[in-house]
Amino acid sequence: MGLDYRIKACPDGLMTDRRHNVKVLDCTIRDGGCCNEWQFEKELVARTFQALRDGGVDYMEIGYQTTDGVYDDAKAGPWRFCREDDLREVADRSNMKLSIMLDWGRATKEMIVPKSETIVDVIRVATYAKDVEGTIDLLEHAQGLGYETFCNVMAVSTCTPQEVDVFLEKLRNSGVPNVALVDSFGAMYPHHVRYLIRKYKNWLRPDQKLGVHMHNNQQTAFANSIVAIEEGADVIDATIHGIGRGAGNCPIELLLMYLDDPRYDVRPILGLIDDYADMRDDLRWGYHLPYVINGWLNLHPKSSIERMSRDDRYDTVRDYYETLTRNRPTPRHHRPPAE
Amino acid sequence: MGLDYRIKACPDGLMTDRRHNVKVLDCTIRDGGCCNEWQFEKELVARTFQALRDGGVDYMEIGYQTTDGVYDDAKAGPWRFCREDDLREVADRSNMKLSIMLDWGRATKEMIVPKSETIVDVIRVATYAKDVEGTIDLLEHAQGLGYETFCNVMAVSTCTPQEVDVFLEKLRNSGVPNVALVDSFGAMYPHHVRYLIRKYKNWLRPDQKLGVHMHNNQQTAFANSIVAIEEGADVIDATIHGIGRGAGNCPIELLLMYLDDPRYDVRPILGLIDDYADMRDDLRWGYHLPYVINGWLNLHPKSSIERMSRDDRYDTVRDYYETLTRNRPTPRHHRPPAE
Repeated sequence: MGLDYRIKACPDGLMTDRRHNVKVLDCTIRDGGCCNEWQFEKELVARTFQALRDGGVDYMEIGYQTTDGVYDDAKAGPWRFCREDDLREVADRSNMKLSIMLDWGRATKEMIVPKSETIVDVIRVATYAKDVEGTIDLLEHAQGLGYETFCNVMAVSTCTPQEVDVFLEKLRNSGVPNVALVDSFGAMYPHHVRYLIRKYKNWLRPDQKLGVHMHNNQQTAFANSIVAIEEGADVIDATIHGIGRGAGNCPIELLLMYLDDPRYDVRPILGLIDDYADMRDDLRWGYHLPYVINGWLNLHPKSSIERMSRDDRYDTVRDYYETLTRNRPTPRHHRPPAE
Repeated sequence: MGLDYRIKACPDGLMTDRRHNVKVLDCTIRDGGCCNEWQFEKELVARTFQALRDGGVDYMEIGYQTTDGVYDDAKAGPWRFCREDDLREVADRSNMKLSIMLDWGRATKEMIVPKSETIVDVIRVATYAKDVEGTIDLLEHAQGLGYETFCNVMAVSTCTPQEVDVFLEKLRNSGVPNVALVDSFGAMYPHHVRYLIRKYKNWLRPDQKLGVHMHNNQQTAFANSIVAIEEGADVIDATIHGIGRGAGNCPIELLLMYLDDPRYDVRPILGLIDDYADMRDDLRWGYHLPYVINGWLNLHPKSSIERMSRDDRYDTVRDYYETLTRNRPTPRHHRPPAE
């Protein structure tokens, strides 16, 4: 193709080399399910599977598996449980790897069937820094059963640099082949991502791959994913139209256009965009100030999701901000009152 | 404040030094007016002026001035004309500089009154690379009348590097004190901005200041503004809730939180967010795929705005994409059909 015709003022042919090794993991159904209790219709999930596969996406994460009794079957949809029968109704073996997520604390070794009995290829466990040891044990067990595995350490923005070193050293000494940097709170700016990706890569073995899962509270999920790619991340999480918990994730269509690689074809995914865009008013992911404020304050999204779910809006955005900042160290930009 | 408490895992105290010289230019009414024909109520514009002033924002761009006959007074609201009486109803002299924009080709020297006869402090002219010479002449005239001036060269993403050099050399040899990098089409990724800011700074004299005006088609307006700040840009354009033509601009609330500087107080602006957020369904700025596609293809936003304004949506997002890409060089990610 020679020079990139899109930006004549900035020839960027030299920027494309390293992108060819990046892999894309779609978690539309898994993380998007946090917005609608995993109640996506099977017909839509089947079309999503086909579109992602036809688009050349590397991984599709189709839901969570959970121990019995944690979620009510009557309330939570099938993608919170990922029973084999449900999976086979909408998906099949293909070049695209099928992934499920387990939550540390709601998962046991007994839940995991041998790889030969399922169409699932990949198991990712979402965990916290303090639980990494147990998580490694669970992931090594899953690997023994034939799965590719990922350790996703959530809420790393609440750890000290020393706490990060501690869990990365444990992962370095483990058999876990993939580790993901997770910005659970949507708190990170690009320079945070750059710092952390370098830290992760310095600790992990060269044969261990690095994933990233960004949240979009401050409209940085896509830009943070670009920084991660620039710094050598291997697997980027994204979702259709950015659907996902709270503000949502990196939109996969932006990512595929950016990668601009013949391995991918964005058109089948664009063919699904209208279906997902139509859900946005109801499910309310995207750019909304309560999410922004929680991200900026490095807070769990819970309170912002609760605020967004209320229709009455008895408090304004400013009230919401004042309530959250009342008992916290004063942000620098709060000027002292004039004398 | 010591270490940034927000991101424990990435101490970033060292990142804050250069931000203290950044200035913020709000263009909510001027660029947001492109969404509603500048029909903002005077009461809202007055409250916006007060909130920006109380928030410590450095510049407020309140609208356009236009030669007679280009816009219909019956259709376009007061902020397309910025008549002195209208301005004085909503604004006043303060520490915040009041700015207006002129469009090259719809502006004459005769329009510009001496600075002493108006509360306007700043004149920015939006122009194209080919018209920079005439624009410099107009801006130098405005400076002679007492104004601070900016030359905003639009659509730079359609220029070759050599064309950029040519107009930057002219600006270097001019009396214009401020030049702005403008991503009119929302086409730029962070590496484009990094490249162009360095190019602009290399050409301009040390006493000339560099502004940036980013569009948010690909959710990069804020991240691109961060890159610009990292590379030494001096003045960042932003709008409340990101309102602006097409996908809109960098949200000012994100920018002020990022800068986290005691010169600014985001709270008065958060107090206005609900007013602007309520317009979003009608005015349809924000993340929508037609804008994404135009940005990625480095196209003028016109066709995407037209597409977004139709309620019938007879074509899908995929159709829209196929139509636009039919007669263009094939994006790399369009794989050849299987044999």
